[in-house]
Amino acid sequence: MTETAILETGRDGQAAASINDLETPCLVLDVDKMDRNVARLRSRLEGFGVSLRPHLKTAKSIEVARRVMTSNEGPATVSTLREAEFFAAAGVKDIIYAVGIAPAKLPKIAELRRTGCDLAIVLDTVEQARAVADFSREAGMAIPALIEIDCDGHRSGVLPRDRQRLVDIAAALTDGAELRGVLTHAGASYGARGVEELRRAAEEERQAVVDAATILREAGHECPVVSIGSTPTAHHAQNLDGVTEVRAGVFVFFDLVMAGIGICDIDDIAVSVLGTVIGHQEEKGWILIDAGWMAMSRDRGTAKQDVDQGYGLVCDIEGKPYGDLILADANQEHGIIAVREGSDAKLPDLKIGDRVRILPNHACATGAQHSSYHVVRGGSDAVEAEWPRFGGW
Amino acid sequence: MTETAILETGRDGQAAASINDLETPCLVLDVDKMDRNVARLRSRLEGFGVSLRPHLKTAKSIEVARRVMTSNEGPATVSTLREAEFFAAAGVKDIIYAVGIAPAKLPKIAELRRTGCDLAIVLDTVEQARAVADFSREAGMAIPALIEIDCDGHRSGVLPRDRQRLVDIAAALTDGAELRGVLTHAGASYGARGVEELRRAAEEERQAVVDAATILREAGHECPVVSIGSTPTAHHAQNLDGVTEVRAGVFVFFDLVMAGIGICDIDDIAVSVLGTVIGHQEEKGWILIDAGWMAMSRDRGTAKQDVDQGYGLVCDIEGKPYGDLILADANQEHGIIAVREGSDAKLPDLKIGDRVRILPNHACATGAQHSSYHVVRGGSDAVEAEWPRFGGW
Repeated sequence: MTETAILETGRDGQAAASINDLETPCLVLDVDKMDRNVARLRSRLEGFGVSLRPHLKTAKSIEVARRVMTSNEGPATVSTLREAEFFAAAGVKDIIYAVGIAPAKLPKIAELRRTGCDLAIVLDTVEQARAVADFSREAGMAIPALIEIDCDGHRSGVLPRDRQRLVDIAAALTDGAELRGVLTHAGASYGARGVEELRRAAEEERQAVVDAATILREAGHECPVVSIGSTPTAHHAQNLDGVTEVRAGVFVFFDLVMAGIGICDIDDIAVSVLGTVIGHQEEKGWILIDAGWMAMSRDRGTAKQDVDQGYGLVCDIEGKPYGDLILADANQEHGIIAVREGSDAKLPDLKIGDRVRILPNHACATGAQHSSYHVVRGGSDAVEAEWPRFGGW
Repeated sequence: MTETAILETGRDGQAAASINDLETPCLVLDVDKMDRNVARLRSRLEGFGVSLRPHLKTAKSIEVARRVMTSNEGPATVSTLREAEFFAAAGVKDIIYAVGIAPAKLPKIAELRRTGCDLAIVLDTVEQARAVADFSREAGMAIPALIEIDCDGHRSGVLPRDRQRLVDIAAALTDGAELRGVLTHAGASYGARGVEELRRAAEEERQAVVDAATILREAGHECPVVSIGSTPTAHHAQNLDGVTEVRAGVFVFFDLVMAGIGICDIDDIAVSVLGTVIGHQEEKGWILIDAGWMAMSRDRGTAKQDVDQGYGLVCDIEGKPYGDLILADANQEHGIIAVREGSDAKLPDLKIGDRVRILPNHACATGAQHSSYHVVRGGSDAVEAEWPRFGGW
């Protein structure tokens, strides 16, 4: 896996100067929109004086990581050991692996820490804390861990006022390992609607970790890191007192789910899938393209929102939405474009070989289907670079 | 991309003798079940005297391909040029690229044909037929194409009785290229319920291509290939008169969607995702594992079936279902195991670090999230090999 941008090549192996020459389907990244998205959250958090620890699971690309992190050395968040390994090798020195630790993964954690990366882990049970402390003592290395807090009941974590469990975990952990702090993720905020609900989710997220940190400090622990994070709450928090850092991932690209919640505009979405028209079913009002669910992912995150975008919103080659034109259905390598149900919009006159760009429901899921980003700026057809991305565990 | 099985390695880089030593999440393939699934369809089709042209989009692995194809040289079906390229390089010489052709892909088709692979394409418009004929004349190579037939209105293709369009496409195509035959896919059969509906879908699929072939022959064309294919219809057709070959893909592994339609038993499903327990939410009745939607895919194909399996059906480390235990929800790298709603089954006593295997809704989608198969047999914990798989376009 190269760390630097590789030369963009087209069908004939030559430099692909134009988006019109890319093989389809492929992933296109509008770097101007991305830079704007990053600047927006950075400037917001600077106002609160808290640091940004971006979640690199969305992009899985060193080129994107370096544009979203505060420095080339981090801080950063990851969701897999593969990400930790890749970014540590690329010089990132401050990483939280933000999925509850399985004890069998500790040798790899120790190995990465020995390369000079301050890699911290997350846990929420006494069982895990004991395993980490035991391993730390044997390895002669105090592995730092954050206690995950459950701020909204959507996934894992200790309830913020479960004093006994918090104190038990901290006691088990500090018997050999290091208590780095507390961490939570307001996953339920993805289902929030409207500014008031989002602000409330953000405040509940903050309150949960601050309460947990207070309990731990009262029990004599330092708890230096108080970490919150989700793209919706990061953009709506009104108060971050007691919080030391914010994690967020999808804000770098945004997507239709985020637009549906009201966190961004459609025009802010920086990634799209380029597809080619391969057929028509005129009586049905369908246009067939060569981008199906393999290129878009099976994510149907807008299905429960007010506006169901199918498998994605269809734009012209410059990235401008046609309006009410969606990828209504998908097979593995076929996408079916149709006018949204109930709309009286007209099907555009797209011929065999014409190209479209599809905005995704969920940037993390769609990105994961591709091995690189084809980098463009705004409506220009020039492809500036191809940035590799990786997957796996 | 290596063509041969690579040595299975575990966390420490040593040979992983046991499924207990694999890094999680990862993809496990029970090769005994796979061999049984392949033998079942082969023997069924031998009874009809038609050949099997397996769809390699499900497995994307040369080791699997060689166990499912009639010979190492094919025949085979693919869904991307990347698959065509990979399998042609591995010696497969008879391939249909079964997604409507975009004219910009023709140079790559010609390039692969020049390597000695008889790669045929698919189209359903006069526009495409003209582009293929024009390209063929310029390239000095008659590219073979099949006309796609729409047997059930679910996707692309010419209606089987649209004589004019069929004859126009054939005329345009044969002005430089080659008419190889007709092809259809009974995609709507995935929504069929019960043996009678499945038999009807199979008969409609057969009738559609046979009718189209008759029209083309009456117009003076040879139409040597009459190709049908879907896993449900391949297993339920009662009559294949006039059909020369059957394409099917997911039959090699099967999955919960196929079990839900009644094409296989749960016990026939050959692929599963291995995950590790990373937490509990006891009050909610949840067990958290490190296999989320990134490992399972976002496919929720059983959501509309009688039995909704969530993101997958949970089995023990030997692959035996616990019963009514499903991956009820998933985040990117977190899976939430719970007892199916309405069931009085008990949550098994799974501790941090214990391992489970999750059967997928859709083998094609889940497989695509992984870079290799870890090969086991039955309930044995021995991992015999790691077979690489590829993705992309």
